[in-house]
Amino acid sequence: MDGVRGGQRAYDALKSVFHEIGVLRSIAGTLNWDAAVNLPSGGRRIRGEQLALINDAIYDRLSTPCIDDTLAAAREDDHALTAPDRANLRLMQREVEHITAAPKDLSSSLVRAQAMCEGVWITAKPDNDFAAVLPFANDVLDLTRQTAQAKSAVFGGSPHEALMDYWDPRTSAGDLDVLFASLKDHLPSIVDDAMKRQADHGLPNLPTIPKTVQLEVCRRIALTMGYDFDHGRIDESAQAFFVDDSPEDVRITTRCDERDYRSAVFGILHEIGHSFYERAMPADWRYQPIGRPASAGMQESQSLLFENLIARHPAFIAMIAGHIDSVFAETGLNAERIRQHVHHVERTLLRTDADEVTYPLHVVIRYELEQALLSGALSFAELPGAWREKYTAVLGVSPPDDRQGCLQDIHWYRGLYGYFQSYALGSLISAQLLETALCAITNAETGLDVAHLAPLKDWLTDKIYRQGRAAPAAQLVEHATGRPLSVEPFLVHLQKRYA
Amino acid sequence: MDGVRGGQRAYDALKSVFHEIGVLRSIAGTLNWDAAVNLPSGGRRIRGEQLALINDAIYDRLSTPCIDDTLAAAREDDHALTAPDRANLRLMQREVEHITAAPKDLSSSLVRAQAMCEGVWITAKPDNDFAAVLPFANDVLDLTRQTAQAKSAVFGGSPHEALMDYWDPRTSAGDLDVLFASLKDHLPSIVDDAMKRQADHGLPNLPTIPKTVQLEVCRRIALTMGYDFDHGRIDESAQAFFVDDSPEDVRITTRCDERDYRSAVFGILHEIGHSFYERAMPADWRYQPIGRPASAGMQESQSLLFENLIARHPAFIAMIAGHIDSVFAETGLNAERIRQHVHHVERTLLRTDADEVTYPLHVVIRYELEQALLSGALSFAELPGAWREKYTAVLGVSPPDDRQGCLQDIHWYRGLYGYFQSYALGSLISAQLLETALCAITNAETGLDVAHLAPLKDWLTDKIYRQGRAAPAAQLVEHATGRPLSVEPFLVHLQKRYA
Repeated sequence: MDGVRGGQRAYDALKSVFHEIGVLRSIAGTLNWDAAVNLPSGGRRIRGEQLALINDAIYDRLSTPCIDDTLAAAREDDHALTAPDRANLRLMQREVEHITAAPKDLSSSLVRAQAMCEGVWITAKPDNDFAAVLPFANDVLDLTRQTAQAKSAVFGGSPHEALMDYWDPRTSAGDLDVLFASLKDHLPSIVDDAMKRQADHGLPNLPTIPKTVQLEVCRRIALTMGYDFDHGRIDESAQAFFVDDSPEDVRITTRCDERDYRSAVFGILHEIGHSFYERAMPADWRYQPIGRPASAGMQESQSLLFENLIARHPAFIAMIAGHIDSVFAETGLNAERIRQHVHHVERTLLRTDADEVTYPLHVVIRYELEQALLSGALSFAELPGAWREKYTAVLGVSPPDDRQGCLQDIHWYRGLYGYFQSYALGSLISAQLLETALCAITNAETGLDVAHLAPLKDWLTDKIYRQGRAAPAAQLVEHATGRPLSVEPFLVHLQKRYA
Repeated sequence: MDGVRGGQRAYDALKSVFHEIGVLRSIAGTLNWDAAVNLPSGGRRIRGEQLALINDAIYDRLSTPCIDDTLAAAREDDHALTAPDRANLRLMQREVEHITAAPKDLSSSLVRAQAMCEGVWITAKPDNDFAAVLPFANDVLDLTRQTAQAKSAVFGGSPHEALMDYWDPRTSAGDLDVLFASLKDHLPSIVDDAMKRQADHGLPNLPTIPKTVQLEVCRRIALTMGYDFDHGRIDESAQAFFVDDSPEDVRITTRCDERDYRSAVFGILHEIGHSFYERAMPADWRYQPIGRPASAGMQESQSLLFENLIARHPAFIAMIAGHIDSVFAETGLNAERIRQHVHHVERTLLRTDADEVTYPLHVVIRYELEQALLSGALSFAELPGAWREKYTAVLGVSPPDDRQGCLQDIHWYRGLYGYFQSYALGSLISAQLLETALCAITNAETGLDVAHLAPLKDWLTDKIYRQGRAAPAAQLVEHATGRPLSVEPFLVHLQKRYA
C-alpha cells in the first residue's frame, strides 16, 4: 500500500467519523433548544436519556480501539494533506483527547446529572429555591471535578485550565489573570466617572411593554440586522441563547422582562451576533472540527460586538427606537431615552442585564468563584455566601436573594464549567476587532451608521468567520489587528462612550 | 455456563439494545415534531441528515453479526422467561426481520428521500404544485417498492402486505378486502339516508374564528378531556399529528382553518385519543417492543373513538360549545348548531375533514390506490388522474385541483406506505369497543355524559392500553368484546346516529 494514499485514506475515514459527530451534535443542539423552549416538564427525564445517548454515541465513535491507529496513520503521511486538512487533523486529535480523557461511565453520568440539574434549576430560579437544586448541582460539580482532574492529567495545567481549554483552546490561567487584573484595576474608575456624569438624571423610568410586543420588536430588529430567518427563528426562553453546532439552523431566543425591555432587545442583538458567526462558517468544512468558531471567546466577541459596541451606538439606537415606535407607540420611548437607558452605568446584580462597563466585572467574579469550586476550596453549598462576598467586594452590591445571586446563570447547573472567561475575553476581542474594522470601513466625517453593517460583516467574514477554527483565536486577533490581544481598545472605547 | 441463565442473559442484552432503539425513536419523534412545527426551511437539509443518522443507528444495532446469535440463545432457553418476556422476545425477532429485510443502503436512501420529499410537499401542497413534488415522490415510491419487495421475500405475502405488517401485524389483504367490501356495500345507503334527512337545512354557515381563538378552545377542551399537559403541549401544524414513540412526551398538534373550526377542534380530539393510548402504555415496558400500541389500527381506533363516537355525542358537543362560547362568544355557535355542523354528512374531498360516515370510504380509496402504486400498476405521475377517477366512482365527487386531491395527505410524501388501512380498521374497532364499554359503564336511563370519561378510560386502560403489544390487535378486540372484529357495530352506530 502506498503510504501517502494510506494517509489520505486514514484522514478521509476520520473526516467521515467527525462528520457524524457533527451531525450528532446538531441533534443535541435541537434537543437542547426544544428543552428550553417547548419541553413539557414530564418529558425531561427522557430528554436527559436522549442527550446521554447522543453523548455516548460521540464518545463511542472517538474511543474505538482503531481511532488512535487511524489518527497515527493520517499524521504519519500528513505531508500529502493540504494545510487546512492538516489543521483539521490536529483538531481531531485534540477532540479525541478531550472527549476520551474521562472514562465513559463518568462522561455518561455527567450528562445525565446535567440534564437533571438543569431541569430542577428551571423552576428553582423563579422560586428562589437554592436548596431544591443544591443536591443536583453537587452531583454535577462532583462529576465535573473528576472530569477536570482526568483532563488535567492528559493536558497538564490545572483542572480549571483543562476545562477552559475545551472552550478557549490554549488559554492559560496566567494570561487571564493578567488581563482580568487589568480590568479590575481600570474599570472601577470608569464606572465612577460615568456614574458621576449621570448623577443628575439617574436611570429614567422603564416603560412596561408586553412580551408579544417585545418579541415583535426583536423580529423587526433582526430583519434590519440581516438575521437569516431562512435558517433561524426567534423564541422566548428563560435565558437568551442560540443553537450552535449547525450553521444551517441558527435559532436564537431571548428572555422577556415586561418591566425592562432592554433584556429582550439587547439580548436578541447578542444572539444575532452569534448567529452571524455561526452562519458564516466555511461551507466546505461544515460539521468538521475546523468548520467551527475559533473559540468561545471569539464566539462571545461577536455577540458582544453587536449587543454593545454596535447596538448601543446612536445610529443603531435610532433604528431600535424606530422599531419600538412602529410596533407599540404607547411606550413614550425615543432614541435619546433609550440611549439614557442603555448607556446607564450602575453596579447591579444581574450579569446579562449589566451595562457594558461593569459587565466584565460580573464575569471576573464568576471566573474566580469557578476556580474555587473546581479546586475544592469552595463547596456548592457555600456558593450563596461566597457569591454575596464577591459581589460586595468587587461591585459593592449584595443580592437580597439567590435568584438575583448564584441562581441567575444557567451555566453551572447545566454543567458548563470553564466557559465564563470567554465573556470577558469577548469584550476585549470585540473592541480590538471593531477598532481596526472601523478604520477600514468608515471615515471620520460620516461616522458609523446602519449602512455600515454590510461592509462590517464582510470584514468580519474575511478576517474571522471564514477562518473557522484553522488558527487559534489569539492568532486570528493578532493577524486581523496587527497586535496581540490587550485590554487597551476596550478601555479606550469605554472612555470614549462613558467618560 | 447454565443454559437457563445464558438465555436470560441473552434476553437482557437484547432488552438493553431495544431500549436504546426506543430512545433513538423518541429522538426521531422530537425531531419530526420540530420539523412540522418549528423548523426554518433552511434547516431541512440537516434535519434529513439527522433523521437518516438515527435510522442508520437503529439499523446498525439490529444488524450486528451477533444479534441473530443472541436472539437464538434467548429463544432456546425461553422457558425461563415470563410470558410477557417471551412475547417481547418474539416482537424483537419480528422487528429485526422488518428492519433488516432491506439492505442498509436502501434503508438509508429511503429515509433521506422521505425527508427531502416531505420538505417539498410542505410548500407544494398550498401551492397546488404536484409537478414540484413529483420527482421526489417518485424517488420515495421507487425505494419503497424495493423495500416492500425485500420484505415480501422475507415474510411472504404481497409487497403491500409486507409493508402493512409493520403497522398492522398479521393483517391479510384478504381479510381487509372482505371488511372494506362490506363498507363499500353498506355506507352509501346510510350516506343517502342521512343526506335526505338533512336536505331541508343543509350545512349551516360556518363562522370565521381566528386561529389563536381556535387554539385556546383546543387547550380548554384538552383540559376537560384530561389530556396530560405535564407530558404534552398543543401546537399548530400543516396536518394534525401526535408524537408517538415516547409515553413521556405525547405532544399533539392540530391544523387550523379559520373558516372551518371543525378541523382544529375535532382534529385535536383525534390526537387526544392517541395521547391517552400512548400515555397509558405499561410503565414497566417503556421503550421495549411490547410496551407499544398493539397496532396502528388499534392506535387509530382510539383517536377515532374520541374524535367521532365520543366528541360528536350530544353531551360532549355541549361541552365543546361551552368552551367556544367562553373564549369567543361572537361566533353565534351553540350546541345545536355545532351538532348540525358535525353530524352533517356529505360526499366531500378531504379525508381529515370528512364526516364519520363517509370517512372510511376516503380510506378505502387510498388503500386501493396504494395497492396499485406498490404493485406498479400505477405510477406516481398518474396519481392525480387515478385519484379523480376513484373519487368520482366511490364518492361521486372530483377534486378541482391536487391540493384537494392527491396532495392532501402527507403519508406517501413522507414514505408512509402501508398505513392507510389502519384508519378504516380504527373506525371498526372503535365502534366495537365502545359498544361493549358503554354496556359496562353507563345505564340506559342516563346515557353517556362527560362524567363517564374516567370510567371509559379505565375500561380502555384495562382491556387495551395496559396490554401494550402483548397480543395482536385482533385478539385484544375479541377478548374485550367477546367476538371477532366485524363491521356490524360500526354500521349500527351510524344508523343510530344518522338514520
